[in-house]
Amino acid sequence: MSNQKLFHLAVVGATGAVGQQILRLLEERDFPIQSLKLLSSARSAGKKVAFKGEEIVVEEAKPESFDGVDIALFSAGGSVSKALAPHAVERGVICIDNTNAYRMDPDTPLVVPEVNVEKINEHKGIIANPNCSTIQMVAALKPLHDRYGIKQIIVSTYQAVSGAGQSAIDETLRQSKAVLDEQDVNPDMLPVGSLPKKHQIAFNAIPQIDVFQENGFTMEEMKMIRETKKIMGDDSIGVTATCVRIPVVYGHSESLYVEFKEDFDLAEVRSILENAPGVVLQDNMDEQHYPLATEAAGKLDVFVGRLRKDLTNEKALNMWVVSDNLLKGAAWNAVQIAEYIAKKS
Amino acid sequence: MSNQKLFHLAVVGATGAVGQQILRLLEERDFPIQSLKLLSSARSAGKKVAFKGEEIVVEEAKPESFDGVDIALFSAGGSVSKALAPHAVERGVICIDNTNAYRMDPDTPLVVPEVNVEKINEHKGIIANPNCSTIQMVAALKPLHDRYGIKQIIVSTYQAVSGAGQSAIDETLRQSKAVLDEQDVNPDMLPVGSLPKKHQIAFNAIPQIDVFQENGFTMEEMKMIRETKKIMGDDSIGVTATCVRIPVVYGHSESLYVEFKEDFDLAEVRSILENAPGVVLQDNMDEQHYPLATEAAGKLDVFVGRLRKDLTNEKALNMWVVSDNLLKGAAWNAVQIAEYIAKKS
Repeated sequence: MSNQKLFHLAVVGATGAVGQQILRLLEERDFPIQSLKLLSSARSAGKKVAFKGEEIVVEEAKPESFDGVDIALFSAGGSVSKALAPHAVERGVICIDNTNAYRMDPDTPLVVPEVNVEKINEHKGIIANPNCSTIQMVAALKPLHDRYGIKQIIVSTYQAVSGAGQSAIDETLRQSKAVLDEQDVNPDMLPVGSLPKKHQIAFNAIPQIDVFQENGFTMEEMKMIRETKKIMGDDSIGVTATCVRIPVVYGHSESLYVEFKEDFDLAEVRSILENAPGVVLQDNMDEQHYPLATEAAGKLDVFVGRLRKDLTNEKALNMWVVSDNLLKGAAWNAVQIAEYIAKKS
Repeated sequence: MSNQKLFHLAVVGATGAVGQQILRLLEERDFPIQSLKLLSSARSAGKKVAFKGEEIVVEEAKPESFDGVDIALFSAGGSVSKALAPHAVERGVICIDNTNAYRMDPDTPLVVPEVNVEKINEHKGIIANPNCSTIQMVAALKPLHDRYGIKQIIVSTYQAVSGAGQSAIDETLRQSKAVLDEQDVNPDMLPVGSLPKKHQIAFNAIPQIDVFQENGFTMEEMKMIRETKKIMGDDSIGVTATCVRIPVVYGHSESLYVEFKEDFDLAEVRSILENAPGVVLQDNMDEQHYPLATEAAGKLDVFVGRLRKDLTNEKALNMWVVSDNLLKGAAWNAVQIAEYIAKKS
C-alpha cells in the first residue's frame, strides 16, 4: 500500500535463535519498515546479519539505542528486557517482549492474537509474548473454551531443545552423535544452563525445564499454569502441567486432557477447530494422520489431532497439540503483535 | 539350596529383545533349571544362543516341543501364544505369557508380583504378563491405592523404541544417523510395522503406539486402561492414557496425574513409596534428582519422582515414573512370576 505508514524497528537479541526467526518473518511478511536496528549484548555486537539483501551490523543494546525507534522486539533474555525495556518505553517505543520479565505484570498485556488481540490496545509501552508451550495450547483451546467453558486442563509436554537456544540444539546433536559412535556423552548444557547438574538429552526424556519452585513445580510448569489463566482472562481455569524436554530439535508436542463445564459433541469440536484461526486439524485415524513435530517445524500454525472423548469423564476431551516453538511459540506470535500495531497506527 | 526342586523350562521367542533379557535374568538369578529349551519361529530356528557358558540351539516351536516342560515363558508375539499356549497347557505346562493374547481373558490372572502376586495361584495353565507401560505404573501406584484409594489416573507416556523390538531400535539409530548426516530418513518400521503409513521417529514424537480402536484410543492406550483395572482388581478406577513413542532406546517414562478418593499428605506419600517393593524414590529438587530413562536402563526397579501436590485439586498428586520396559516391563516381571511358581512348587 502506497500510503502505509512505515516504522522504525529495533530487534533486541537479533543473533539468537528467536531473533533470527523474527528477522526472517519480517522479511517474508514484508513488514512496513522505515529503518531496522539490530541490537544485542556486547558479546554479539559487531556481527553482521543479512536482511533483504543488505548487511546490518549488530550494535550493543543501550538505553539510547532506542531513540527514534517506534517498535522494539525483545528476545535477549529476561534480564536484558528488565534493564532496557523501561528506557525504551520512556522514549515512546512500543516494546514486544518475548521474555518472562513482564508477563505476569498486571499492567502488561500478555497476548496471543488468536485469543486476546484486543488486549494489545491496553498496553502501557510493553506487550508480553507468552511462553512457547503456553501459546500453542491456548491458541488451540480458546475456541473450545468460548463454546463449552474449560474447567480443568492437565497437560504433559514433549518440548524441543531449540526452546533452550542454539547451544542446546548443538549440544543435542553432539550428544546424539556421541551415543551413535559409542563415545562418552558429557552433558554440559541441559536441563538448565545456570544450574550445576547436567543430564544427557540424547535418547532421553528430562522432566525438568527451568528451575524448581518451592511447590515442586518447575518455573516452566508455573508459566503454563499462570499464563493460561491470564491470556484466557479466566482465573477459574484449573491448569496442571508437567514439562519435559525430549530430543526433538524444533516443535513442541503436548498431550492434553481438557475437562469442560458442559457436555460436548466430538463432531462439533472438530468443526470448531477446523474453523479456528491459526489452527490446523490433523485428525484421521484411518490415514494415521496426526500432528508431528517434524512436520510442524518451519510452519506458522498450531496443529491439533488425536481428538477423543474421554472414557471416564463424558465432559473431558483428549488431544495432541503441536507447533513450532520458535515460530508460533515465539517469533511469529511477536511479529503478529507487531503487525497488529502497525495496522492500527 | 540342595533340595531345591529343579524345573524343565522353555523360552518361546528366545532370540527376541525380551527373550534375550529373560535368558540373562534366568542366568543371573540362578533359576533352578533342570533343562532349558529355547524355542522360536521357523525363521530363527537353528540359531545358537549362549546360556551359562553353553551353546543352545534354538528349535522351531511346535505343540510337541512342550512335552516334559514344567514352565514356559512366551514372548514371541500374540499369535504364537494363541497358537501354542493351549497345546502347552494340555501338556501340563504352566505358561507365563508376555503377549496381549490372554491378558483380558477372565480365566487368566494378569500379574504384577508387587501388586497381586496371590493371583498366580488361580491360574488355569496361563499367567499373563501385563503390557510394559501398565506394569511400571501399577507397581508405583498400588501402595498409594491401598492407602488413599485411586479415583482417576491420567497418564501420558514417553515410550522407548525397544518396546517395538530390536528392528525398531535399529531403525531409530539408523534414522538418527541419517538426520545427523543430513541424509533422507526413509522411515520403514514405526509407528506400527503392519500398517501402511510410517513416520520418522528420530528427533520426533509419535502419538501412536499400536493400532487405533473405534473410540479414538490406540490399542496401547486401551491396554493401559483395561489392564490397570484388572491388575488393581478395581473397575471403579478411571484411567485415561495417551501413549507416545519418543526416540529413547531403553526405558519408558510416564507423566501421571492421580486423583485419590481421600486427601493425602505428601510426606506420607514419599514414605509409602520409599518402602514400596520394587520401587525406588528419586525425588530431590535441590539436587535435580528425578528418574531418567538413561539411568533406569538395565535396572530392575521402578523409579518414581517429581512428586507434587496438584495446585487445583487437593486430592491429586503429580508424579514421574520410569522403568526399563524390557526388564520390569517384560522379562523381569515374567521371571518374578516364574520364581514365585518355583518357590511354591
